[in-house]
Parts: sequence; structure tokens; C-alpha cells
Amino acid sequence: MRQMEEMILTCGKVLPGGILKVGSFLNQQIDAEFLKEIGEEIAGLYGSEGITRILTIESSGIAIAAAAGMYMNVPVVFAKKHKTSNVDGAVYSASVHSFTHGNDYQAVVSTEYLCSSDKVLIIDDFLASGNALYGLIEICRQAGAEVAGCAIAIEKRFQGGGDELRARGIRVESLACIESMTDNEIRFCRP
Amino acid sequence: MRQMEEMILTCGKVLPGGILKVGSFLNQQIDAEFLKEIGEEIAGLYGSEGITRILTIESSGIAIAAAAGMYMNVPVVFAKKHKTSNVDGAVYSASVHSFTHGNDYQAVVSTEYLCSSDKVLIIDDFLASGNALYGLIEICRQAGAEVAGCAIAIEKRFQGGGDELRARGIRVESLACIESMTDNEIRFCRP
Repeated sequence: MRQMEEMILTCGKVLPGGILKVGSFLNQQIDAEFLKEIGEEIAGLYGSEGITRILTIESSGIAIAAAAGMYMNVPVVFAKKHKTSNVDGAVYSASVHSFTHGNDYQAVVSTEYLCSSDKVLIIDDFLASGNALYGLIEICRQAGAEVAGCAIAIEKRFQGGGDELRARGIRVESLACIESMTDNEIRFCRP
Repeated sequence: MRQMEEMILTCGKVLPGGILKVGSFLNQQIDAEFLKEIGEEIAGLYGSEGITRILTIESSGIAIAAAAGMYMNVPVVFAKKHKTSNVDGAVYSASVHSFTHGNDYQAVVSTEYLCSSDKVLIIDDFLASGNALYGLIEICRQAGAEVAGCAIAIEKRFQGGGDELRARGIRVESLACIESMTDNEIRFCRP
């Protein structure tokens, strides 16, 4: 998606430690006009796949998933992040390691909102090592739901998570795919 | 908004302690078709007010704010919740007491995403005592931004926060306004 690449080049900032900051249009602040284009793009990729539910994780995935849901007319569920593994009620849960914060958390979804007849599209803002996605895939497995694929706003391909998921037969679509990233240059993958 | 009342009556659950659970269509799971109606309704209420930014707080406010932003073509900013008061970088922050979790947290917004020329619409899913809204209003005050008003999905009017805000001259619009709530009956405010 050309606009995502342009937004990254125009508004993104590379911070020390290989962090790409996109808070001005995709995270803490969301460009609403651009969000519509993101929703439309994801609907174009997965709209004919018979998706029954979109699954994401709080907080940065929610706006993107909501936009895609609005264009696909599909309900959106977000996994909550719990610091402890003690979660009340009937839930699906998976342990996820956060590289950003250097800790582990439980990704949790109530069993009410995901079932074995679901065909799930997993959405997130970033894909680096893939830890959060593995957690969401595990939650789908616990529910007996089918994972149709993943839609990611920005894949940092050099961190390997996306290719590892593809090697396992999971469809992964990234709206922008970064091949390499330095303070001075962001290079995108080309087919 | 008649549909919000109908959704509450059809899908909401009153839990012990005066909690209204709307996780099946507004919180952990979001009904995407309904979300479009919510966005359109809020745009109808505030679309002619010259809003330059929508401000909400993670996580349950994000989808509603994103939908409103998409219909109003206005950028959306969400405050993050931090457990501690030690937040790095230049931020606006306000202490908020959470009745649900029985603790205090800091609502934090980077100074990059809110400024003195902004006319802000504050959006949240629930309004009870109004603590979260006061935090967001305080953040606008720190930025020197004007608060045009608040749009709330569900106001629990019997908890008083909405009327207190209105008494202070702040415009508060609720898509559904609950007058009283028991296990057996939810009664909505009527003009």
C-alpha cells in the first residue's frame, strides 16, 4: 500500500533501538482519513474470504481493526492484556512476551466472543518477531476457530516474524513491509 | 439514539455492583455495523462545531472515537493509562481514579498531539462519576485547547457525573442515558 509507505517516510521517526515511531498517524494519534483507506485496503485483501470475526489486541490494534470491521461488516474483538495469569471468568488466554516493555503478559478473550465456527482475520499495527500474533493464533486454536490470515499495518521484515508465520502456512498481508531501517533510511521490500 | 437503547436492552447485562456489561457490542467485542451508526450520530451532533481533534482514553473509547473521526474527518488521539506518575517525554497528564478497578492511574497524552489552537471533542464509552472525563478535560486545559463538548455512548445519569459536568457549562451528549438500573429493569431518561 503506497500511502502507508509514504506516511512512514513523511511522518515516521526511527528511534534508538530499532523502534519506528508512528504515533502521529497510526498509534496514539490516528489520522482518520488515512484510517478509512487502511480499512478499505484490508477489506480488499480479505473481503471475499468469508471472515466472521476480526481479532486484535489492545490498544494500538483497535482503531485499525475497527476500520476494517466497518468496511467488511464483521464484528471486531480485542484481546485484553493482563499482567497476571489469574483471569476470572471463562476465557481463552495466551502468554505473550513484549520486546518493547521487556515483560510477559496474558492476552485474554472471553469465550463468549470467539467460537469454533468462526473464520478469523487477525489484525495488528506492527509485526516484528510475531509474538503478539502467536498469542492471538493460540487463542483462536483454543476456540477451535479457523485463522484465515493476518493483516498488519507495518511489518518489520528484518525481524523475521512474518516469514516464520508464512513458513507455517499462515497468510500474512502487510500494508507496508520494511526491509531495513537506519536513522537515515527506511527501505521497503519490493516483490 | 434509539438503537443504542435497543442494543442495551437486547444485549446488555446488569451485573452485581451496578455494572452494565456491554462487552458483546461496544467493549471487548464491537458490532461494526452499529459502530458506523454511532460514528454517524456523533458526527451529526458535533459535525458543525469546527472540531479539530477528538480525544479519548484507551481502550474502550478508541473504536468509538475512531468511528466518529472517520465520519468527521478529524484526527483521533487517545490518552494512555499509566500506573505510575513517572512518564517520560513531554506529556500532558492527569490523575484519574478508576471505580471499576479501585485504583488511580495517570492519563497521558504526548504534547505533540494536542495544542492551544485545538477545539476538542472528548469521547468515551461510559460516563458514570465523570472521573475519566475530568482527566481528559484537565489534559485539554494543560494544552490550552478548547473543549467543545463530550460525546458518550452510555451515561449512567444516576451516578451524577454528567449533570455535574453540564452544571459547569460543558456540553455533554449521551447516545443513551440511563435513569435507573436494576437486575430486572433498565429505565432510560426521557426529556
